[in-house]
Amino acid sequence: MSSLFVRTLREDPADAEVPSHRLLVRAGYIRRAAPGIYTWLPLGLRVYRNVERIVREEMDAIGAQELQFPALLPREPYEATNRWTEYGDGVFRLKDRKGADYLLGPTHEEMFTLAVKDLYSSYKDLPVWLYQIQTKYRDEARPRAGLMRGREFVMKDSYSFDVTDEGLEASYQAHRDAYVRIFDRLGFDYVVVEATSGAMGGSRSEEFLARLEVGEDTFVSSPGGYAANVEAVRTPAPAPLPWDDAPAAHVEDTPDTPTIATLVDHLNAAHPRDERPWTAADTLKNVLLVLTHPDGTREPLAIGLPGDREVDQKRLEGQLEPIAVEAMDDEELRKHPTLVKGYIGPGVLGEGAASGIRYLVDPRVSEGTRWVTGADEPGRHVLDLVCGRDFTPDGTIEAAALREGDPAPDGSGPLSLARGIEMGHIFQLGRKYAESLGLQVLDENGKLVTVTMGSYGIGVSRAVPVIAEGNHDELGLCWPRAIAPADVHLVAAGKDPQLLQEAERLAADLSGRGLDVVLDDRPRLSPGVKFKDAELIGVPTIVVVGKGLVDGVVEVKDRRTGERQDVAVGQVVEHLVGLVRG
Amino acid sequence: MSSLFVRTLREDPADAEVPSHRLLVRAGYIRRAAPGIYTWLPLGLRVYRNVERIVREEMDAIGAQELQFPALLPREPYEATNRWTEYGDGVFRLKDRKGADYLLGPTHEEMFTLAVKDLYSSYKDLPVWLYQIQTKYRDEARPRAGLMRGREFVMKDSYSFDVTDEGLEASYQAHRDAYVRIFDRLGFDYVVVEATSGAMGGSRSEEFLARLEVGEDTFVSSPGGYAANVEAVRTPAPAPLPWDDAPAAHVEDTPDTPTIATLVDHLNAAHPRDERPWTAADTLKNVLLVLTHPDGTREPLAIGLPGDREVDQKRLEGQLEPIAVEAMDDEELRKHPTLVKGYIGPGVLGEGAASGIRYLVDPRVSEGTRWVTGADEPGRHVLDLVCGRDFTPDGTIEAAALREGDPAPDGSGPLSLARGIEMGHIFQLGRKYAESLGLQVLDENGKLVTVTMGSYGIGVSRAVPVIAEGNHDELGLCWPRAIAPADVHLVAAGKDPQLLQEAERLAADLSGRGLDVVLDDRPRLSPGVKFKDAELIGVPTIVVVGKGLVDGVVEVKDRRTGERQDVAVGQVVEHLVGLVRG
Repeated sequence: MSSLFVRTLREDPADAEVPSHRLLVRAGYIRRAAPGIYTWLPLGLRVYRNVERIVREEMDAIGAQELQFPALLPREPYEATNRWTEYGDGVFRLKDRKGADYLLGPTHEEMFTLAVKDLYSSYKDLPVWLYQIQTKYRDEARPRAGLMRGREFVMKDSYSFDVTDEGLEASYQAHRDAYVRIFDRLGFDYVVVEATSGAMGGSRSEEFLARLEVGEDTFVSSPGGYAANVEAVRTPAPAPLPWDDAPAAHVEDTPDTPTIATLVDHLNAAHPRDERPWTAADTLKNVLLVLTHPDGTREPLAIGLPGDREVDQKRLEGQLEPIAVEAMDDEELRKHPTLVKGYIGPGVLGEGAASGIRYLVDPRVSEGTRWVTGADEPGRHVLDLVCGRDFTPDGTIEAAALREGDPAPDGSGPLSLARGIEMGHIFQLGRKYAESLGLQVLDENGKLVTVTMGSYGIGVSRAVPVIAEGNHDELGLCWPRAIAPADVHLVAAGKDPQLLQEAERLAADLSGRGLDVVLDDRPRLSPGVKFKDAELIGVPTIVVVGKGLVDGVVEVKDRRTGERQDVAVGQVVEHLVGLVRG
Repeated sequence: MSSLFVRTLREDPADAEVPSHRLLVRAGYIRRAAPGIYTWLPLGLRVYRNVERIVREEMDAIGAQELQFPALLPREPYEATNRWTEYGDGVFRLKDRKGADYLLGPTHEEMFTLAVKDLYSSYKDLPVWLYQIQTKYRDEARPRAGLMRGREFVMKDSYSFDVTDEGLEASYQAHRDAYVRIFDRLGFDYVVVEATSGAMGGSRSEEFLARLEVGEDTFVSSPGGYAANVEAVRTPAPAPLPWDDAPAAHVEDTPDTPTIATLVDHLNAAHPRDERPWTAADTLKNVLLVLTHPDGTREPLAIGLPGDREVDQKRLEGQLEPIAVEAMDDEELRKHPTLVKGYIGPGVLGEGAASGIRYLVDPRVSEGTRWVTGADEPGRHVLDLVCGRDFTPDGTIEAAALREGDPAPDGSGPLSLARGIEMGHIFQLGRKYAESLGLQVLDENGKLVTVTMGSYGIGVSRAVPVIAEGNHDELGLCWPRAIAPADVHLVAAGKDPQLLQEAERLAADLSGRGLDVVLDDRPRLSPGVKFKDAELIGVPTIVVVGKGLVDGVVEVKDRRTGERQDVAVGQVVEHLVGLVRG
């Protein structure tokens, strides 16, 4: 500690929103260089390298082969797959001195695909599993939580290449198994959930989410074992209802009902019904949006959903990617004279209707359902409007927020919601990139067939803050042993030179046995300051060479549980080797 | 080999200029992704990682601490040191989505300096030695020779921070010793030469050059042990000569003498002299240049040097960095009416003379030397023009090319010239960056003092082609054992299934003993093709399981020497372990 390049801070950094970020900065693991861009200090780099090593070992163990693509990539391959355009503002772009276009790779599908095309030509060469552990770049609109969502970060990305769908299935399963081993070894609390494949295309798709309140992803799970990222949840379409006995739709004056709450109050006052009172769930809310396609063209879109549901921005974006979506503002709204703010209804919505605006509805707005909704006139609503009879949407969309207790799509029970952060994503990419880039091989019959791919990512640098987030207390970090920056933190606690001498001797003995030791040999610091730093830094075992030395013992403390134990000096090396080697 | 992601090529790649580049591509170590930007295939990555490991081990061994800065860097720190401007076209620049300026780090002096400023404040914290092994970017005008001069590459860069000059000297020496160990272990032929410190500023400076004909650097050495990069060679200034007995300068008609050769012929014909004939060395050649300063301002410059010397562009650039230099073209020349092309002389040159152009001369153009040079009139030259009497240059400059046999500046004998490529550069940076960025610490007396720095770089990715360049023959690569992609290349040579079985058994046994084995198990290839691939790939030891197996022997071949030896199957594992462990 007297020479380690570290300086612990007592104060939280001003820009740190989450505990892991605060603690990683305070304990001297990382420093901010620019928004979303960090420096690994020596302690942080050690933890990061431990994560990297575990990932590499497990990837090598399944026979995946490591290579390394550049981070600075030419435009051409991304042009071939249209991603140069689709990425929009999300990538860093630059020109070289000759004016040629480059990007800083956010993912490398194109490069992997082209490498296999370059080297391989026969079904006999497949399957092949390739991976890299590499610095990637995304120009995040809102970098946050330190390394959790940074703009320069390290990912392990692998791709599998197979001739057949069965082959892809086997490659997928092998990677899934490796991921389970990796996340188990890294030692965090995670859940595997169904996921969408986002901008990448593809079919089977699962995410490994670390369970964390500070996470950006929400996932659902049911008692019956269903688990999915909210973006992937498909609302079961209700069976069509008959409308033979439904009254005809009728428009009613509903003065001063600009909100759903005021509308429901009005309905219960002016149109009470016997079976049950009106609720927001009886109303059909229509939300107006503007989409921006990757090529820049803009398009209005209306979404209809039960009035008791909010639009979930992430679910909505998940359906529309890579199209960007924003609320329609008043200025834009005025361009559509048939739209009456606060009273917009399906009467004018739809590609074939007066507004011409595409109209997608929540799956619960299904054939035969009856709604109260805007009558497209100020202060008026229409009642008993039946979907399929009185209006026909252009399609459905999963945009409504999920709620605790919603039924699981597979009937396995009510859903619970929780938050997490994506640590891994595996999915069957299929033939999309192979088709765009012409990756074909000869099959057994000498016929050219397009290769099918799987895509498997892990956030390697992200793992550090995520594990920190799940492994800390009010005093500091508590690293799992597998990735801790050292095995033992030795504190020479006191001014007696003999204490330091004994601590140094112990440190040398432990190093000789292959343990990594942090030795706090700082001469002028009080034991209290050293203990505080040890708790903050979070090495799993803290050994105090202090007062007990006169009685021939040192104190061995478990950082996580706080348990202390006096161990005879003569036995402490064996004791610690035992602890570390498990 | 049946599953390794590799494909050897029989043909040389079209863009490869040097053997290492040809062989690394043909043997499946690297692939080009864009000009000067390469992908490491699995074999290449293994070699690269071996280099990286050796560098890291030796840096750790001297107590340097590893950290990692980002590659994507904000403009501000580079603005503070003026390098944002000085770098010119040589760096990749980009803007983020908010329009903020970034660069892809070509070197990290600013970041290291600021990190120490951030964490440390007292002389007690120093010295500290920090390093990183990191991907760097330079937008080279002419990327060449594959990975030798790439635009994305990996460097190890360290910096030492000391309070005193003596401390810096000790830090420098420790790094120098580590570098000697690193380059010895990497196993290439290198020379340590005096160097300039280029754009970085600073004092003591040495380069580790790999001796290679294809290298871009020229260095000199003398029998007495002097060695220097040509850019660093200082021509000894001759003692002033008396000019009392020198005739007055006289202008002569020299019709049709636009070149030095024609002038010398004319002199010998029209003005013969007794002591010796006129030679080009008697003439003073004046070369007109245009400098472009980092801020874009342009400035003419004249350089005077003996007519038998050429301007050495690299030596010239070395003196002027970061100023760019180009020859003055005719259009520019016409802007200076006092300059008469082909007959330009010191009569009009110099800041105080008619042209107003700054005039620097070779150190050999010293006080009292007598010259034939242009008379600033077409077809006329001036003879017996004495430096210091008839003209006074504005200063001297080291721009003349060196020649085999020139005297060493330290009197240690005649110089030999040879070519090499820079693999490492260590130099005393001094206080330049610490001053620009305000890195001060409190000294023993509580006074703020500016820290002094040393800078130490190694081209880690460059080491791979450089070692390949020095370790190949007409058949392929011959890796030194320390960095070879594997220890043993096992060839199952023949169609008998027993051969493959035995090779697989041997491979398993060798792996069990900790050796890295490439096993050529490809079923349908002839032994000849497999041998060719083994020679091309260049693993140090090739083991052939073939015809000899019926007699209980396998062939062990040294890739470099070609020596073959039959070894009994029962002894071959021990034999190979012995070879590899040395």
